[in-house]
Amino acid sequence: MTAARLSTSLGDGGSVRIVGTGLLGTSIGLALRALGLDVILANRSPAALRLAIDYGAGRPAADGDAPALVIVAVSPDSTADLVAAELDAHPQALVTDVASVKAGILADLLARGADTSRYLGSHPMAGRERGGAISARADIFLGRPWVIAPHALSTAAQERILEDLALDLGSTPVRLGPDEHDRGVALVSHVPQVVSSLLAARLLGGSDAVPALAGQGLRDTTRIAASDPELWIQILGANAGPVAEVLEAFRDELDGVLQALAAPNAPGAPTRLAGMLTRGNQGVARIPGKHGSDARYASLVVQVADEPGELARLLTEIGEEGVNMEDLRLEHSPGAPIGFAEIAVLPEVASTLGDALLARGWQLSGGTS
Amino acid sequence: MTAARLSTSLGDGGSVRIVGTGLLGTSIGLALRALGLDVILANRSPAALRLAIDYGAGRPAADGDAPALVIVAVSPDSTADLVAAELDAHPQALVTDVASVKAGILADLLARGADTSRYLGSHPMAGRERGGAISARADIFLGRPWVIAPHALSTAAQERILEDLALDLGSTPVRLGPDEHDRGVALVSHVPQVVSSLLAARLLGGSDAVPALAGQGLRDTTRIAASDPELWIQILGANAGPVAEVLEAFRDELDGVLQALAAPNAPGAPTRLAGMLTRGNQGVARIPGKHGSDARYASLVVQVADEPGELARLLTEIGEEGVNMEDLRLEHSPGAPIGFAEIAVLPEVASTLGDALLARGWQLSGGTS
Repeated sequence: MTAARLSTSLGDGGSVRIVGTGLLGTSIGLALRALGLDVILANRSPAALRLAIDYGAGRPAADGDAPALVIVAVSPDSTADLVAAELDAHPQALVTDVASVKAGILADLLARGADTSRYLGSHPMAGRERGGAISARADIFLGRPWVIAPHALSTAAQERILEDLALDLGSTPVRLGPDEHDRGVALVSHVPQVVSSLLAARLLGGSDAVPALAGQGLRDTTRIAASDPELWIQILGANAGPVAEVLEAFRDELDGVLQALAAPNAPGAPTRLAGMLTRGNQGVARIPGKHGSDARYASLVVQVADEPGELARLLTEIGEEGVNMEDLRLEHSPGAPIGFAEIAVLPEVASTLGDALLARGWQLSGGTS
Repeated sequence: MTAARLSTSLGDGGSVRIVGTGLLGTSIGLALRALGLDVILANRSPAALRLAIDYGAGRPAADGDAPALVIVAVSPDSTADLVAAELDAHPQALVTDVASVKAGILADLLARGADTSRYLGSHPMAGRERGGAISARADIFLGRPWVIAPHALSTAAQERILEDLALDLGSTPVRLGPDEHDRGVALVSHVPQVVSSLLAARLLGGSDAVPALAGQGLRDTTRIAASDPELWIQILGANAGPVAEVLEAFRDELDGVLQALAAPNAPGAPTRLAGMLTRGNQGVARIPGKHGSDARYASLVVQVADEPGELARLLTEIGEEGVNMEDLRLEHSPGAPIGFAEIAVLPEVASTLGDALLARGWQLSGGTS
């Protein structure tokens, strides 16, 4: 990490107070300490606080502390309480939080009459499978979006402070209003979880021969169905309204598909199915980044024996050909001694690379459904 | 490929006739020719037939041909017609097909009074993104399931012939009755396609900032939404009943989720959400193979600079540590100079490998949602 922008924007000696030393609070503390900032840690539990201090995430509070920025990093249902308390206790500070829902917290603060002119909510979209200070790392924010959620009383100067925080931690700041944020995470995270769980649940019952027919499509669509139910009950409960709104639109379109399937040759039915599939094409094309079926890249499928070192040898040889691999996907069919590596490269190098790999003795193969 | 089982089971000089020289027919021809079998090719279009013969997939029909096995490899809606014609034309032959639906074809043959005692349907679950003889390859069946669909009049001896065909081509034979097959592919392939398309379609409209929040979960669940609509209209139409049945059960459970989300703190609502999530856990656990969140493996997330050769170096060093990688998944966040390689290994070697990679200077990192 490079020099701290946040240090400059908070002014000389500006301290950051972090309330809550779980995974996110402790990770932010570790990252800010690494940048040389003064970090004050607070936690209801003295043992948890001692652990985070021991980890090097910050120091305990002291008389005369006057933090310029307070970050409340507790569970969503305690967030409004603690933000209100911190606004009272530190009348000069900007107070933010990191909860995964935003509109409910702001509404709660407004209802209590808290000084929301000094509150600006945020949501770093980072996490780990395990929580707690013990899993904290300074780098969990690297390359992840960090949503900053301006509202009627927040200012551009406050937004810049949180942007500097996000940039200092390697995140990409994204501005979204609280409602837009909640609808956004419903769409990109919460609804995919529900849909994946519902789809995977269909695999229950029946013969084992059926799940054995699974190809990569089923594996991809159901991967997140393995997520922790306890965590997700909380998330879905806290963002129930926006999640339900997206799911209702999903169900309405599903009903249209079911109508078309009831009489697939009736006038209008093929058009309805085509519309659903085409809209799916257009929707997935909106997701940025290297992953998914990215039209910018061509792909080669190479057979790789299921032996240690074979994949490394393939990638080394691709490097020797001077080709930068944009993405890699492995597929290994149960029972087969051979796996397939699907390699995405720029279209202009695909055929040269294919020829070079054939010349080096690799088998190129047809992709599978 | 090794010596042909099929050659033995068909008896000396037993020829195979393939009707339809698209992707599957030509690929089967190439594979059987490589095993030394006599392959007769037929196609309505003389030009398409010449192309497949030119590719080396077989020879044209000749007077006196008496094939022991006929494989009809045409589109699902022409399959019953051609199977019936081949049963008439070759009264000694076993006739099979490779269409992706099975029950409708059998019902059609029975309705015509065809000699179904010599018909046994099958479905090699292989394909490529592009069709046609021009995309044909002998290896597209390698490691894929090949469904054989016995019915009331088919015999164990006939099943063995198709098993030998599947094994000769590197596939794994799977026995499933026609109805069970159609319900199975609805579940593992057709319904995931619909669900993924419907989910991706939700991303249309609204600000570009929202799809930019996408993590790996959304990318995985919507990847197949990029599939070809024209192909999928046909598939969904041909298997409308079983697809609708699974989708209706999906919708019923979705309605339960929507009810719970309407009052997420009401008695019973958290239990309902928990049930949905837990059933998802149990469903995804039924999918065999290395992919998905596989509880048999531990995973390490390693930071890899987005530079040619870095991933190869990582895999080489994992090989040097004597560790067999069970799976690999790459994640690269838009705009970040660093990607993450998630490596699945046997749990007993995970911590040793983690230490070794740290000692070699790699950064281990927290996984992201």
